[in-house]
Amino acid sequence: MNTNHIIIKMVLDRWYGSVTNFNKILDSLSDNQLQKEIAPGKNRGIYLLGHLIAVHDDMLILLDMGEKLHPELNEPFIKSPDKTAIAIPSAPELRSFWAKQCDVLQQKFSNLNTDEWFAKHTAVSAEEFANEPHRNKLTIIITRTSHLQYHSGQLVLLK
Amino acid sequence: MNTNHIIIKMVLDRWYGSVTNFNKILDSLSDNQLQKEIAPGKNRGIYLLGHLIAVHDDMLILLDMGEKLHPELNEPFIKSPDKTAIAIPSAPELRSFWAKQCDVLQQKFSNLNTDEWFAKHTAVSAEEFANEPHRNKLTIIITRTSHLQYHSGQLVLLK
Repeated sequence: MNTNHIIIKMVLDRWYGSVTNFNKILDSLSDNQLQKEIAPGKNRGIYLLGHLIAVHDDMLILLDMGEKLHPELNEPFIKSPDKTAIAIPSAPELRSFWAKQCDVLQQKFSNLNTDEWFAKHTAVSAEEFANEPHRNKLTIIITRTSHLQYHSGQLVLLK
Repeated sequence: MNTNHIIIKMVLDRWYGSVTNFNKILDSLSDNQLQKEIAPGKNRGIYLLGHLIAVHDDMLILLDMGEKLHPELNEPFIKSPDKTAIAIPSAPELRSFWAKQCDVLQQKFSNLNTDEWFAKHTAVSAEEFANEPHRNKLTIIITRTSHLQYHSGQLVLLK
């Protein structure tokens, strides 16, 4: 049984399902709500949104799919904890970045064929990959889906 | 390229990684902390723990791996919202249930061979499965890993 195309669908279904769920939460929140902390003393909603865009931008690099859309978000949303960056984009700007990025990722994912999904990602060497074939591009989708779900469970608390 | 065994490793790695991460959070919290709400007016930590045990118990049914370990948890932790059940197990009891259940699942997962992971789960009919081969047992692991991550992102807020 050759199940490669089936497993790619399984993994991408969960990714898109997680994105859809995140969008439902995001759309239910006002810009003012995004400015609030998800729990007292914890990250703000707007920080989680910026963080996810920055992490998903890095997927483009890991998947060898071109340049980041917003490299400027790495510093305030990955390197820096919340409420320490001097300036961050507004909630409407981040919403727009997010929506556009989701479209770009979807287009690029749809262009990859089965063998390409099982090829190595860019953070593993050819030598390492020979012994660790699970470190492929599809694994990046699996781990980033986990990450998205983790923060979705937090963002929903602002509702 | 036959990648079936690789993809099973990829999916199970993410499951076990999520369980390990959840355990680290759980171990860092006292029984008193588990009694607190993850955010004002939201679920308590103890409810999330019981909810996860009840959901993972249902995996045993979906994966055709035997009976539930704690069918009595379905009512207070899936059917009922938090703070409505008359009585629930204590935090130490739930911690013990969780640890034991993780061991049981690990043992049962390790006994499944490649073809069995790609066989249908119990909530899909043979007719449906013929057209929808992605509704297999491995998909249950993918979706429940997502679910575990979602609530892990919430439980960590009690730290």
